[in-house]
Amino acid sequence: MLELYYAPDTCALATLIALEEAGIRYRLNRIDFGKNEQQGADYLAVNPKGRVPALVTDNGILTETPAMLAFVAQAYPVARLAPVSDAFSFARVQAFNSYLCSTLHVAHAHRMRGHRWVDSENTEAITAMQRKVPQSVGDCYAYIEAHAFHGPFVMGEAYTICDPYLFTIAQWMEADGVDPRQFPKVAAHRALMGERPAVQAALAAERV
Amino acid sequence: MLELYYAPDTCALATLIALEEAGIRYRLNRIDFGKNEQQGADYLAVNPKGRVPALVTDNGILTETPAMLAFVAQAYPVARLAPVSDAFSFARVQAFNSYLCSTLHVAHAHRMRGHRWVDSENTEAITAMQRKVPQSVGDCYAYIEAHAFHGPFVMGEAYTICDPYLFTIAQWMEADGVDPRQFPKVAAHRALMGERPAVQAALAAERV
Repeated sequence: MLELYYAPDTCALATLIALEEAGIRYRLNRIDFGKNEQQGADYLAVNPKGRVPALVTDNGILTETPAMLAFVAQAYPVARLAPVSDAFSFARVQAFNSYLCSTLHVAHAHRMRGHRWVDSENTEAITAMQRKVPQSVGDCYAYIEAHAFHGPFVMGEAYTICDPYLFTIAQWMEADGVDPRQFPKVAAHRALMGERPAVQAALAAERV
Repeated sequence: MLELYYAPDTCALATLIALEEAGIRYRLNRIDFGKNEQQGADYLAVNPKGRVPALVTDNGILTETPAMLAFVAQAYPVARLAPVSDAFSFARVQAFNSYLCSTLHVAHAHRMRGHRWVDSENTEAITAMQRKVPQSVGDCYAYIEAHAFHGPFVMGEAYTICDPYLFTIAQWMEADGVDPRQFPKVAAHRALMGERPAVQAALAAERV
């Protein structure tokens, strides 16, 4: 059985939703950030990067949300979570998810994880990073809204692994200082996703 | 024919090498960063993100290096650039490339693109970011060296789309203040890759 290492309110939710959408049985292992478990020896043996999520499969352990989502889509094709057999369409899905991980999630991370990129004692630089987040994150949503979102789902009529990932990151909009009303397509997507049983099941599961 | 929009010394090199390895005919379109062409109307019509690379295919335009590399591997399977039909193995390849784009490349980008994450006039914060780069980039290579690199290629005996991407980013090590001698596996990989005709052809092509 698949095992997902996760913490609530992290990008692990994207994979959790995909597992629910695909109807795959899985076990959840919660990592307690309050106890810094992600840096403990037990978890570092699972994921030496010391971050969530990680997905334990029969063949080995996977990390990195875009790869985990692609794995779920490709390993369970009956769930039709991505156009895995069409090289261009699959790459378009992966380009969107790659943008989320390398640009939008990174912009967001400068609010609470600035110590990754400046010395943690440098509170002025940390604060300077935090001040920029509403703009840098907002710019990402402006790009998505204008160019990458087809509607009603990210890629158009078909639900794909782009949808749980965008939904997950979009949960952080308000805390990032971005007004959802500026981005009506993304806001409508959040509402649409919130109605899905798989999303409700995933949100409930991560709260247990 | 595929068209690759690129600039020298950027991560576009990874896709250029993959195209050479696969023996695919392509056309190169150089974007002149000195003239800020990446932000010009002509290029924004190709890639609204205003960044290189972008790959024009018969079906549409792709961006984001991990997705472009996966596309080349999947669209030209005879070149055997990735285990595209094995969900776990392909995901492992994509996890590595996702780490490069979202963690290693991002750490590197804080040296010359700090204005993405703080106001560009804040020279103290920009400088504080630059000071951290040797450590944050070095930490990524330490992770790769200890946990993700199998040798002689990234994934072991088989060459994959991880190899041109790691080779490309590793070109920036010295400028990032990271001593290659600390990372002998990555250094040996650079040397091995540098001997490949496809790499030499790609490096020559981007200089034209």
